[in-house]
Amino acid sequence: MATYTLVLVRHGESEWNKSNQFTGWYDCDLTEKGVTEAKFAGQSLKEKGYTFDVAFTSVLKRAIKTLFLVQDELDLHWLPVHRHWRLNERHYGALQGLDKAETAKKYGDEQVHIWRRSYDIPPPALTPDDERWSGKDRRYSTLDSSCVPACECLKDTVARVLPYWYDNIVPAIKSGQRVLISAHGNSLRALVKYLDNMTDDAILALNIPTGIPLVYKLDADLKPIEHFYLGDQEQVKAAMEKVANQGKAKK
Amino acid sequence: MATYTLVLVRHGESEWNKSNQFTGWYDCDLTEKGVTEAKFAGQSLKEKGYTFDVAFTSVLKRAIKTLFLVQDELDLHWLPVHRHWRLNERHYGALQGLDKAETAKKYGDEQVHIWRRSYDIPPPALTPDDERWSGKDRRYSTLDSSCVPACECLKDTVARVLPYWYDNIVPAIKSGQRVLISAHGNSLRALVKYLDNMTDDAILALNIPTGIPLVYKLDADLKPIEHFYLGDQEQVKAAMEKVANQGKAKK
Repeated sequence: MATYTLVLVRHGESEWNKSNQFTGWYDCDLTEKGVTEAKFAGQSLKEKGYTFDVAFTSVLKRAIKTLFLVQDELDLHWLPVHRHWRLNERHYGALQGLDKAETAKKYGDEQVHIWRRSYDIPPPALTPDDERWSGKDRRYSTLDSSCVPACECLKDTVARVLPYWYDNIVPAIKSGQRVLISAHGNSLRALVKYLDNMTDDAILALNIPTGIPLVYKLDADLKPIEHFYLGDQEQVKAAMEKVANQGKAKK
Repeated sequence: MATYTLVLVRHGESEWNKSNQFTGWYDCDLTEKGVTEAKFAGQSLKEKGYTFDVAFTSVLKRAIKTLFLVQDELDLHWLPVHRHWRLNERHYGALQGLDKAETAKKYGDEQVHIWRRSYDIPPPALTPDDERWSGKDRRYSTLDSSCVPACECLKDTVARVLPYWYDNIVPAIKSGQRVLISAHGNSLRALVKYLDNMTDDAILALNIPTGIPLVYKLDADLKPIEHFYLGDQEQVKAAMEKVANQGKAKK
């Protein structure tokens, strides 16, 4: 029997999802569709009677707003919310801001696929003189400079997400708090890979859909007993396929 | 010369402000006008170049949403936000939910004025069997029962706000963080009374307008050098008078 319940939500569509640009740590807003997706996530949780004691999110507004909209649907504005850079999206390095289809045309589908979907090959690195360098952003000004990524492969993202999981989320779950996490495609992959003990290849093939709560039932050692998406299965499947098809060169 | 800047914002119009009911710890939402007021507060701060490092608010959604809307205008979604019951509105006891004008008609303007505006005479108390008893609300379930108010006069509110000021807000300010507080008419009065060392009578005569940022410039010992509202002075005066006139029996 499950001892704990943990719920993960991937933020709704962002402006750069819509314009098909590599986003990473760029702090773009939700689109109207993204707002609707976030509200839908909140309504799904409400309908099924879920509630929470604490929430965790990144320092990027698309995840924070998604969380706020979910809280609004659940009437849980008062929940303690912890924002942390370790839950940010994978850092896309020098690809940040580039158009995905243009990049695919320029470098080929295969190269972009490698950058997007290889476990341990990072995209080209940003340099500190680049205006997109995250170290120039005030919200990261208290970090040790070695913590500010120049680029990340998924392996790097997993490595920087897990300390936050161990030090902040696990103690919350083990203290009996019902935890909600609103984050990003790859920071959630990091958690799912760990929870389900997935291989590097298996996690790369997993596409978490936006705005559909992913529920984990955990035993006393936080080992998953089961996990499932809250929502219509056809809808979930279509959403997953849409994510998988992003970044292919438009014909 | 000022060492620190502190900004206070009173939440915009709530549903029960609009329907003229005593609100206290009841968790009503902002009205559309309240949303506009909150955005205006954010825009005023943005125009004048204010920014922040940390924010504090109550566990009531009208203050939390006001803060979120201010953060949205300032593009500061990533700010750490600390929610705490000690920043809640004054607890209105057994008056909570009653119509202000009806109550004035029934008990007389003078009695209602005493309940609303005396420093140390609390309104009638709620009892734990009342459905409005705050101890039944999950967000207060971890409090010692002696912390759950049956009712509060302003003196009581001051007494429970100040420990949070001393223990959480003062260290943030003294560490050099620029602090934003989104709270309520009376929890903000508690802070203003303390900061400006005001008499009991003087604080009762002060009506903080909604949605207009109140800026304090503080010296190294957190003594105010000056304070001012960000906004057109005529607008501020009209907003203050409107607050002062609430709760009089309608002729």
